[in-house]
Amino acid sequence: MPVPHLSTALRGPILDLENRIITAMPSIEHWLRSKWREHTVPFYCSVDLRNSGFKLAPVDTNLFPGGFNNLNPEFMPLCVQAMMNAIEKICPDTQSVLLVPENHTRNTFYLQNIATLQSIMQQAGLNVRIGSLLPEITAATTIDLPDGQAITLEPLIRKNNQLGVKNFEPCAVILNNDLSTGIPDILQNLSQAIIPPLHAGWATRRKSVHFSAYDQVAQEFAELIGIDPWLINPRFTSCGEINFREKQGEDCVASAVNRIIAVIQKKYQEYGVKEDPFVIVKADSGTYGMGIMTVKDGADIYKLNRKQRNKMAVVKEGMQVSNVLVQEGVYTFENINQAVAEPVIYMIDRYVVGGFYRVHTGRGIDENLNAPGMHFVPLAFEASCLLPKNSAQTHSIPNRFYAYGVVARLALLAAALELEQEQAGLNTPAPLPAD
Amino acid sequence: MPVPHLSTALRGPILDLENRIITAMPSIEHWLRSKWREHTVPFYCSVDLRNSGFKLAPVDTNLFPGGFNNLNPEFMPLCVQAMMNAIEKICPDTQSVLLVPENHTRNTFYLQNIATLQSIMQQAGLNVRIGSLLPEITAATTIDLPDGQAITLEPLIRKNNQLGVKNFEPCAVILNNDLSTGIPDILQNLSQAIIPPLHAGWATRRKSVHFSAYDQVAQEFAELIGIDPWLINPRFTSCGEINFREKQGEDCVASAVNRIIAVIQKKYQEYGVKEDPFVIVKADSGTYGMGIMTVKDGADIYKLNRKQRNKMAVVKEGMQVSNVLVQEGVYTFENINQAVAEPVIYMIDRYVVGGFYRVHTGRGIDENLNAPGMHFVPLAFEASCLLPKNSAQTHSIPNRFYAYGVVARLALLAAALELEQEQAGLNTPAPLPAD
Repeated sequence: MPVPHLSTALRGPILDLENRIITAMPSIEHWLRSKWREHTVPFYCSVDLRNSGFKLAPVDTNLFPGGFNNLNPEFMPLCVQAMMNAIEKICPDTQSVLLVPENHTRNTFYLQNIATLQSIMQQAGLNVRIGSLLPEITAATTIDLPDGQAITLEPLIRKNNQLGVKNFEPCAVILNNDLSTGIPDILQNLSQAIIPPLHAGWATRRKSVHFSAYDQVAQEFAELIGIDPWLINPRFTSCGEINFREKQGEDCVASAVNRIIAVIQKKYQEYGVKEDPFVIVKADSGTYGMGIMTVKDGADIYKLNRKQRNKMAVVKEGMQVSNVLVQEGVYTFENINQAVAEPVIYMIDRYVVGGFYRVHTGRGIDENLNAPGMHFVPLAFEASCLLPKNSAQTHSIPNRFYAYGVVARLALLAAALELEQEQAGLNTPAPLPAD
Repeated sequence: MPVPHLSTALRGPILDLENRIITAMPSIEHWLRSKWREHTVPFYCSVDLRNSGFKLAPVDTNLFPGGFNNLNPEFMPLCVQAMMNAIEKICPDTQSVLLVPENHTRNTFYLQNIATLQSIMQQAGLNVRIGSLLPEITAATTIDLPDGQAITLEPLIRKNNQLGVKNFEPCAVILNNDLSTGIPDILQNLSQAIIPPLHAGWATRRKSVHFSAYDQVAQEFAELIGIDPWLINPRFTSCGEINFREKQGEDCVASAVNRIIAVIQKKYQEYGVKEDPFVIVKADSGTYGMGIMTVKDGADIYKLNRKQRNKMAVVKEGMQVSNVLVQEGVYTFENINQAVAEPVIYMIDRYVVGGFYRVHTGRGIDENLNAPGMHFVPLAFEASCLLPKNSAQTHSIPNRFYAYGVVARLALLAAALELEQEQAGLNTPAPLPAD
């Protein structure tokens, strides 16, 4: 349990897969420690998981997490401690960093995320100011937020290759902007450290490359604890040269859907799973739950109406979708007050620092929950930890959340490999699954 | 606030000294980060503090902390995360450590500490077994504890220079035994890492050496934030060749008491403090609050009755006191339910992971509280952190506990310097204060 002992929505007995992971804890932690000696851990990361009972897998890995405000405030000390670790690696000799957020000024949820992130970094002992890419921010602008916090956006100032704000020369630039629209000129060729690196942004990053790296990680991990890698790994493939509006590239997607469905079908038979297989087709770059759909048959791809095709054609900030990921869908069997829920795990440096459930009352167990109408339920520490001391055997209650923290860290490790490969220019399109 | 936002007993306005420390946070954290690049942080440490309102100072630094069971269970995730850091440095490539506790089998409070420590290390992903130095432990012996935990003590097995227990070959030996009675043969010349090192034990360690190192640290820190170092540093000196039973060495102690009293008197006048100065005379080696007394006049040293002299003559496990520390007493102005209280701060690696109040209903504000009759009140997270989100300005409430965490970490840094000097054989008796 090197991850917080948190309360999960699933209350039943610990499942076989979870049990395997919990039992193998010392070897898992040992293995992860060795991995972090070999690979550079991303600065921060959030991972969307799906737990179908028989399968526990990451479905999205975000290198610019935007929901720190959704973490339970009780977790702040964990965040701060992990941040102190992260900082030491970046700017051992500094006190000042610049935080560059997304270009939102009216999305107060997002701005609360920035305020929380700034607070975590300040509490870790840094001077932090927020430099906005928005042209309309021409002077320091303070925005009061519904949660009582406030943030001050300031115009960026670039002098030669140093980025800062007025009277502030930070040692590093911390990005909380996923660069969906490309890398702005003002961020190019800086002499300061940029964290995460520019190639972690959606201008270059591809989900298919991430999940290729995850294939390797899942394979090695599965061997370590003696499980079928499929139990933690959604099958996937990808298609390029897509234009949903022009019905271009449909054959690739339809055939990919059918191949993935066939693979899942075989696995469902092997494990006696009664549900219908489904796949998720989503933009290979980008986030915010746009350009995403659930499909149960390749033929459905040809039957998309105009509205559906338009919805798939663009992601955040109107970027065109030309590559898609076709990924095995993983049912979520977790629910909170009858609404389907999926856990989102937050990490800073190599530490799990908390999480929350993304809950959607209007969606099914085979649908993407990252959509308008969702809300967030912060994970709390397991009550068992807080019981009076002589309530006996607090230490014997298995930590269901541990398994979530492990799978999230596998995705974190995959992101580390992905970024290394990206930096070395080694990334190739993801291969099709062999079987 | 790179230390947990905890609730302290003192509820009044933030005092000037605390405010200085809180305001200087970024430079303090930056300075501490640079120190931890230069010096090896002790594995774990607890520090007893006294807060007299005008002065906040460490009075005892324990390198084998024995009260992990007194920490709030809510802090376990922080302990585990810090332990993961500590482990990486010691045994990056291992899964197994041996924990060697004190020779107590009936002190269930202490055994709960060991159970908690084992649990923290297990949760950080280690296999941990407990090897006892006690000759009567000849087979694995499980002891059920009042808090519902249980521990298993096993006989130590030494093969050549490797220490272990049955079928268990740990990479490192973690000591939670302060070696008051000397270094047992079975721990000599091991090929494994011993953590903390043997010279951190009371067989060699001297409080006067620690507080000499603290003098340097306090001086440098005081310059950093622009305060009088006296505000965080109790004056002290030491006397050797003492035998309280034989009335030997009394002159040195009496004259030291008077000199320290004179120094304090001057400072009290400078700061307008109305209280009477007092000093604490205590054994220069050893712990458990034995061999310690409060004195307000050097002449009192000659007037000790037989019972008082006997009490000062021995410490834990009957060890004779031949060196004493004569240290400025610091009033404690904190109290819990009318009982005097002093904070004890716990650290793992370079992180503050929690703390508790040592409370004594039968003692005064100028007395040592580490005595029979004391009890412990775990520090809780500040309620302000847990208030609903729109209760406004949670981030503007200053973290009074931060100052405690800083002063505790200054003592931790002093311990690091002390251990380095000890290892290099550089330690000399502490100098007398100049003024």
